[in-house]
Amino acid sequence: MQPELDRRIPRRPGITSTRIEEDKAEILSGTFQGRTTGAPITMIVQNKDVDPQPYERFRDIPRPGHADYPARVRYGGFNDYRGGGRFSGRMTVALVMAGAIAKKLLASIGIEILAYALTIGNVSSKTDLAREELRKVVYSTSVRCGDREAAPLMEKAILEAAEVGDSLGGVVRAVAYDVPPGIGEPLFDSLDSELAKALFNIPAVKGVEFGSGFDAARSRGSLNNDPLVVKEGKVQFETNRAGGVLGGLSTGREIVLQVAFKPTPSIRRKQSSVNVVSVEETKLELTGRHDPCVVPKAVPVVEAVVSIVLADFMIRSGKIPKILE
Amino acid sequence: MQPELDRRIPRRPGITSTRIEEDKAEILSGTFQGRTTGAPITMIVQNKDVDPQPYERFRDIPRPGHADYPARVRYGGFNDYRGGGRFSGRMTVALVMAGAIAKKLLASIGIEILAYALTIGNVSSKTDLAREELRKVVYSTSVRCGDREAAPLMEKAILEAAEVGDSLGGVVRAVAYDVPPGIGEPLFDSLDSELAKALFNIPAVKGVEFGSGFDAARSRGSLNNDPLVVKEGKVQFETNRAGGVLGGLSTGREIVLQVAFKPTPSIRRKQSSVNVVSVEETKLELTGRHDPCVVPKAVPVVEAVVSIVLADFMIRSGKIPKILE
Amino acid sequence: MQPELDRRIPRRPGITSTRIEEDKAEILSGTFQGRTTGAPITMIVQNKDVDPQPYERFRDIPRPGHADYPARVRYGGFNDYRGGGRFSGRMTVALVMAGAIAKKLLASIGIEILAYALTIGNVSSKTDLAREELRKVVYSTSVRCGDREAAPLMEKAILEAAEVGDSLGGVVRAVAYDVPPGIGEPLFDSLDSELAKALFNIPAVKGVEFGSGFDAARSRGSLNNDPLVVKEGKVQFETNRAGGVLGGLSTGREIVLQVAFKPTPSIRRKQSSVNVVSVEETKLELTGRHDPCVVPKAVPVVEAVVSIVLADFMIRSGKIPKILE
Amino acid sequence: MQPELDRRIPRRPGITSTRIEEDKAEILSGTFQGRTTGAPITMIVQNKDVDPQPYERFRDIPRPGHADYPARVRYGGFNDYRGGGRFSGRMTVALVMAGAIAKKLLASIGIEILAYALTIGNVSSKTDLAREELRKVVYSTSVRCGDREAAPLMEKAILEAAEVGDSLGGVVRAVAYDVPPGIGEPLFDSLDSELAKALFNIPAVKGVEFGSGFDAARSRGSLNNDPLVVKEGKVQFETNRAGGVLGGLSTGREIVLQVAFKPTPSIRRKQSSVNVVSVEETKLELTGRHDPCVVPKAVPVVEAVVSIVLADFMIRSGKIPKILE
Repeated sequence: MQPELDRRIPRRPGITSTRIEEDKAEILSGTFQGRTTGAPITMIVQNKDVDPQPYERFRDIPRPGHADYPARVRYGGFNDYRGGGRFSGRMTVALVMAGAIAKKLLASIGIEILAYALTIGNVSSKTDLAREELRKVVYSTSVRCGDREAAPLMEKAILEAAEVGDSLGGVVRAVAYDVPPGIGEPLFDSLDSELAKALFNIPAVKGVEFGSGFDAARSRGSLNNDPLVVKEGKVQFETNRAGGVLGGLSTGREIVLQVAFKPTPSIRRKQSSVNVVSVEETKLELTGRHDPCVVPKAVPVVEAVVSIVLADFMIRSGKIPKILE
Repeated sequence: MQPELDRRIPRRPGITSTRIEEDKAEILSGTFQGRTTGAPITMIVQNKDVDPQPYERFRDIPRPGHADYPARVRYGGFNDYRGGGRFSGRMTVALVMAGAIAKKLLASIGIEILAYALTIGNVSSKTDLAREELRKVVYSTSVRCGDREAAPLMEKAILEAAEVGDSLGGVVRAVAYDVPPGIGEPLFDSLDSELAKALFNIPAVKGVEFGSGFDAARSRGSLNNDPLVVKEGKVQFETNRAGGVLGGLSTGREIVLQVAFKPTPSIRRKQSSVNVVSVEETKLELTGRHDPCVVPKAVPVVEAVVSIVLADFMIRSGKIPKILE
Repeated sequence: MQPELDRRIPRRPGITSTRIEEDKAEILSGTFQGRTTGAPITMIVQNKDVDPQPYERFRDIPRPGHADYPARVRYGGFNDYRGGGRFSGRMTVALVMAGAIAKKLLASIGIEILAYALTIGNVSSKTDLAREELRKVVYSTSVRCGDREAAPLMEKAILEAAEVGDSLGGVVRAVAYDVPPGIGEPLFDSLDSELAKALFNIPAVKGVEFGSGFDAARSRGSLNNDPLVVKEGKVQFETNRAGGVLGGLSTGREIVLQVAFKPTPSIRRKQSSVNVVSVEETKLELTGRHDPCVVPKAVPVVEAVVSIVLADFMIRSGKIPKILE
Repeated sequence: MQPELDRRIPRRPGITSTRIEEDKAEILSGTFQGRTTGAPITMIVQNKDVDPQPYERFRDIPRPGHADYPARVRYGGFNDYRGGGRFSGRMTVALVMAGAIAKKLLASIGIEILAYALTIGNVSSKTDLAREELRKVVYSTSVRCGDREAAPLMEKAILEAAEVGDSLGGVVRAVAYDVPPGIGEPLFDSLDSELAKALFNIPAVKGVEFGSGFDAARSRGSLNNDPLVVKEGKVQFETNRAGGVLGGLSTGREIVLQVAFKPTPSIRRKQSSVNVVSVEETKLELTGRHDPCVVPKAVPVVEAVVSIVLADFMIRSGKIPKILE
């Protein structure tokens, strides 16, 4: 699991926050003699290098783009306004931990999930990256992009935005290989709806689409339908504009989805806000340590979340046996 | 409730299927003397004018863009392959029925949901339509668009596609007015994740985004953050690029979301498919009654689904009292 | 399924209410060509021969032993006070319908559930009835007792109570045969806790116990523990004081449980109550049609409820395959 | 909270196991500046003084009355067979921790839960103990009994059983005072069914009953119904044979329930078992540290579990506000 956690943090100065996140996971329960016992697996990562001091100010002056204001209303002012709380990107550490287990389960039946930065700011990756390539390239780049040529351009875009105290957003794509057809529950627990729900719980996500997604809305039926063909004696969909999901069920093709991340709301530039106690307008300048773009850290998180949802579905479908030998 | 059901079907020849859907709802339980009793409200709409005959062929030859193939795999060939089943757009009738009740609950605390066709094919509506305008215009147009000028162009695009045996997709936007701030459960039942989950359960949905959505991914923090200001003595967000959700909680601004619908998969053009019993490639020509674009019918469905999710959250938050006077 | 519903009502005058309950079940969805389709199975039984008139009075004068008063408080006076509502024994018809399906699933893997009246009033059945005997005898007696000698005494006790305008309670025992060991989820969804939860939802149930139950509380460890032995080359528990459940998991022995039913609260005798509108004490005389003992009708209901819970667990454990051939 | 945990362990030699359970609770998340933050409250108690060595033997030779055998089957032999696992009484520490929070919530709206040993072996407590008396007496006795005269007899019974290497069971009663009427969800989440479910999850519980419970099964309607009267201008039930629940809803009277605990299965006497690997019968002698009766430790656990369920219902009903001042 530790390697998964380490993947969350590119060791490239400037790309991510300078906060030191060692993120050492400790297992408290659920394993014994190198195997799971059936009991819940409890893991803990201690928050170290925490500096709550800069957060004191946001108690009364909400940061634009953050949950400070609605959280204050929701919890009657008693919300924990310090960093590292439930509205923090730190929570994604837990998702990556759970994802590490889900990936192991999926690997036992041959399913693999790969994610990568499809766009960062205005820089786009190639879209037809091969599985082998993704496996090799993504984590060798600081921006977690599978396209060797786009990666340095993405990095440059981030550094330039950071230099002027600004931030960038981007799109993460995830691909799930070798998911058998017919997975999902029609109507209320469909494969795409459960994936979308889980993905929207990642901080900073503003959009989720499958296959041709929003482009499909501008297309025509004759261009967007995936024909069926026989390949190596098997029924298959020739193309994959559906992104591997039809009627809430997997089609047998790769699950392909895109997740839109907004630009990091924490920027060094002066912003307008309000002191909610005195109800007076004011300016806010953030000085803490922030990632100028969340996408590089988000790539393994998206991978983890897709893995968790798929592992649940595979268990539910009976494809992952209750007891692995 | 009946008016809500009737809104599902534009009475404009050519725009929607010629199938006669009377959709008369009957209440079986849960009301007494004009009030709810606390018991589950059971409603039923009988499927009339059903012609299962054309569906016989899809049992063995799955239609591209439909769930026929994965459903066959999922249910071992015993799935009900006739029209009107769980993978059919007919299921949205139930969503509209439930939505009618949810809307009444929301109206009791001043929340209103309005949806409209934002794009159909390549025709776009204006995006800054006022609440009053939406209320007046949307259901007076055959395509359920709030923009009087775009509406006839959208209608024309649909008729042209239909003429050549093709179909169009589009984007539906929904706006929820007067949702108080702080609604939602952080992390796992966030407001946006529950809305996304519910929306992806509508047939033909391929993408969901909030506020600036996928555009945010190409923006910068300084441009995408919504500043806070004081208006009429109250703390508010000046702009609404967040679409009314931050950290999974409502911000106090309107909830604004876009839903991408793919073009109707049922088209009259000849398509490639496979006979899954003989495992031979074949051609398929559909002759049944189909909507050349699902968007007009989808508008009240999106409205209903957003209403259902919001009503649940308002009950959960205690803002809708258990017993309405 | 119809035979199951018919078993609910002994055709013996005096033993059960004279209300005519035909209870014809109609299947609305979920089956096709004699098989289930994977869609929810919706069944409906129409309430016929309903006479709401006598219930008008209980609106303001709650019947002792009934939910009239708490329901009135709970629903602010808008509860449906007529007979046949959610607090009525009529709801058990739905449990029997669902149980009929559950029994079919369980039968497909060799599990059988048999229930019978263990006691009615002060009359007790023999406790060591053989499986074959139960199968043959129970539904041949008007009181649903497996013991041919006790049955007429139970019947007599009921008729005597009815004659003086009073009612009797009793205990129903259920036995589940051939449940494999290791079924259940420890701690929060244990086999016994799920069964108990479901059973307490049957109207008039006041107690649930497994195996030696409350008697175990007066016993000693050396007398109450079930030793393990080898029988026909297999590990087994020699005795079954545990009632087939240890630590929330099935032991491999029959699941044996007892359910205590209180005497029917509706009696012809004059009772004290209060007009809750005028807040004045008053007397109440019930004249409607009532069962002088709920036990005979409760036997198939307990059988159904145990079947439903066990079928859920068997599906969850993977022992019932997703698609039955 | 610590006082609640300390109540779990009577400091009277001979009555409970000599294992040293310090049970110091540490709060990891969910509180800040002396208040809850709305985030989940995570608490941890480290298992100290653990000696797994004696448990090695039960891996292959299941202890009668324990979950060893079904757990082995359930988890394919990979279950954690050491003490302190999920089938251990140690898990009740977590229930007491959660119960401490639930009690605080209930106290904020005036609800109090008191539990006590009603019987231990053949010794019974008086049944009409007053609230004040229970509050004062129960935790001043080693056996957690509210009756000063029965307490030493219960203690004596336990010591005598222990002396001959045997164990005793007993019944715990819990009373919830000042629960308003109308709490509970009819049919599937009724107040009694949720309480029963939660209580059956406590290790060693074999029966649960409300009010007159199994005695009601031998009673008559005219004797078992609780009449309604006017007291101090209010509608009330005069007696409480229902144990405060009718139709799954609270009646306004105290919730009264009894829980049957079996005798501790771990006894020093020689018992018959089977080596499940060699499939040979064998004898088993337990030498570890065991409680000769679980009832004294079970009293605060029952109190905690009832508190947890009631707190959930009070939140659900809106009677406990989302934000306490």
